[in-house]
Amino acid sequence: MSDFQRKLIEHRRSIDRLDTILIYTLGERFKHTENIGKLKAEANLQVSDHGREQFQIERLRKLAIDANLDSEFAERLLKFIISEVIENHKKWQTG
Amino acid sequence: MSDFQRKLIEHRRSIDRLDTILIYTLGERFKHTENIGKLKAEANLQVSDHGREQFQIERLRKLAIDANLDSEFAERLLKFIISEVIENHKKWQTG
Repeated sequence: MSDFQRKLIEHRRSIDRLDTILIYTLGERFKHTENIGKLKAEANLQVSDHGREQFQIERLRKLAIDANLDSEFAERLLKFIISEVIENHKKWQTG
Repeated sequence: MSDFQRKLIEHRRSIDRLDTILIYTLGERFKHTENIGKLKAEANLQVSDHGREQFQIERLRKLAIDANLDSEFAERLLKFIISEVIENHKKWQTG
C-alpha cells in the first residue's frame, strides 16, 4: 500500500468515527426537541421561538470560531437542523 | 419557576451541550477532509469520489436507524456537509 493510500484510509476512518458521533448526537438532540414540542403542545405554545433561535445562532457562531469552523456554516447548519425539528413536529402533531 | 419552565430550561441546556459536541466534531471532521484534499491535490486526484460517497450514505443510513433518526435526514445531512467540504476545497485551492 502506498503512503498516499495509507494516509487516505486513516483520514477516512477518522471521518467515519466522527460521523458516528454526529449521528448519535443528533439522535439525542432530536429526543430533546421532541420533548420540548410535547411540553409546548400541552401548554398551547408555538414550537418556533425567534428569541431562542437568535440566542442559538449567536452562541454557535462564537463556538464555530473556537472550533476553527466557518461561522456562516455553523449558522446554516443550525437552520438546517431547526427546519428538520419543525418537520418532525408537524409529523407527530398530525400522526 | 413553573414545572413547564424548569423542564424547558433543562432540555435547552442539553441541546446547547449537544450542539457544542456537533460544532467541535465538525471542526475535527473538516480538518480531516482538508488533509484528504491536500493529499489528493498532490496526487492530482479529484476531490469528489462517488464510490466513497455511496459507501458513506449507506453507512449513515444504517447508523441513523440505530440512533432512532430519520435515515433520509441522515442522507441530507451528509450531502449538506459534503457540499461544504467541496466549497472549502475551492477556497483553499484558489486562496
